[in-house]
Amino acid sequence: MPPPIEDVWPAVCLVRPQMGENIGAVARVLLNFGLVSLRLVAPRDRWPNPKAEVVAVGADHVLKAAKVEWKLEDALADATLVVAATARPRGLEKPVWGPRETATKLRAAIAAGERPIVMFGPEASGMETDEIARADAIMTLPVNPGFASLNLANAVAVFAYAIAEARQETDAPSWFKSENPPATQEELEGLFSHLEQELEHGRFYHPMDKAPLMKRNLRALFLRTRMTQQEVQTMRGVIKALTVGRGGRKKDDV
Amino acid sequence: MPPPIEDVWPAVCLVRPQMGENIGAVARVLLNFGLVSLRLVAPRDRWPNPKAEVVAVGADHVLKAAKVEWKLEDALADATLVVAATARPRGLEKPVWGPRETATKLRAAIAAGERPIVMFGPEASGMETDEIARADAIMTLPVNPGFASLNLANAVAVFAYAIAEARQETDAPSWFKSENPPATQEELEGLFSHLEQELEHGRFYHPMDKAPLMKRNLRALFLRTRMTQQEVQTMRGVIKALTVGRGGRKKDDV
Repeated sequence: MPPPIEDVWPAVCLVRPQMGENIGAVARVLLNFGLVSLRLVAPRDRWPNPKAEVVAVGADHVLKAAKVEWKLEDALADATLVVAATARPRGLEKPVWGPRETATKLRAAIAAGERPIVMFGPEASGMETDEIARADAIMTLPVNPGFASLNLANAVAVFAYAIAEARQETDAPSWFKSENPPATQEELEGLFSHLEQELEHGRFYHPMDKAPLMKRNLRALFLRTRMTQQEVQTMRGVIKALTVGRGGRKKDDV
Repeated sequence: MPPPIEDVWPAVCLVRPQMGENIGAVARVLLNFGLVSLRLVAPRDRWPNPKAEVVAVGADHVLKAAKVEWKLEDALADATLVVAATARPRGLEKPVWGPRETATKLRAAIAAGERPIVMFGPEASGMETDEIARADAIMTLPVNPGFASLNLANAVAVFAYAIAEARQETDAPSWFKSENPPATQEELEGLFSHLEQELEHGRFYHPMDKAPLMKRNLRALFLRTRMTQQEVQTMRGVIKALTVGRGGRKKDDV
């Protein structure tokens, strides 16, 4: 198993969060996607918060290391780049990015030595305009305009996922994770001949002039699966098992 | 404000979900990203669940319309494409996609008339291997290997967000070029039962305790091809042709 990921940047800053459960859920989902820096500005309830601890189970160290401040400016003091997550840009003249764009830009910024922080507002009301005004850019999620209000941890989940995707970008996507060697053309040909021979024996091809088309369609079906060597062997076993004991043909005829 | 988005496909299927709160949170985040089709297989607690209703507030209609089944196969019966969200592919021969790739493929599939369903397992344990075996593909989130276990609603949030992103991209590449209607789960199930019955008759499964594994591997092979209805019919003809006239079994036994 590869080693755990624990990226210090970007940090996530919860502005006036209300429910302890949500703070705990944010800590958990940050660590799920390899982020560990959490900041809290004026949490509504006392801190530390036992409800947060229950929900954050497994991400305790993220929660314990959370930096708690009373003023937003203190929480953002060391940031070189601030993004506000909000559905409502409210006419501020700021760039507006989606999560993917935000993640790509932040990863590039971090590589260049920057310290970005992404702010998320309180559950019920969102951030004040002058809080958002501190941001260099706004991150907006592509939400349903008829039902835009996201659970806080779900919103952070989407952002943290986008960061994890951006982290992986260098890796090629692996469409097919098979550890087993793929069948060669020769092995496939052996399978097809075997099958076609048995089908002829079972009078599958009628009318006979359609046989080439029927063969082609069957081959297309099996080619599409990109069979492994093991699977070709299995299919040959299947054909043998299906045809064993039928009349008019000797066992060793193959 | 643009009109609300309410996409019927893809559907999300929660397999044996445990906590009502999580089911409610899933309903909410689905609607946040414009999805409305929820299916539940054997929820642990009674249904309807008041705890789910409290958390789903605002997405009540998604929760109320949720289709509840006791068996996974019933919940998937009308699907033409099934994706299992899991961190553990466990050696099954299936394509493995990230959320973005899954979303792009599903949007293209839907445009081509398919009915995709994405399954998420229970909170504590995840899905069983034979549940995952029903899927055409696996969706894996790019999680921290040191802390991979996501809250259920957060996992669904990431997928639903990816769908919303894909919705915004003007035209998705068409992954499904076939003009022929894809087979439903029910048609595939009919094919598999037919094949398995005939294989049993041909004494294919030995030793007998390996039968479940052998069945799973064969199913995986055929699921991967994403067969059309026509191809399922062809394969049933193939099985008949291969088994016709063999001893010990009557012609009309099927």
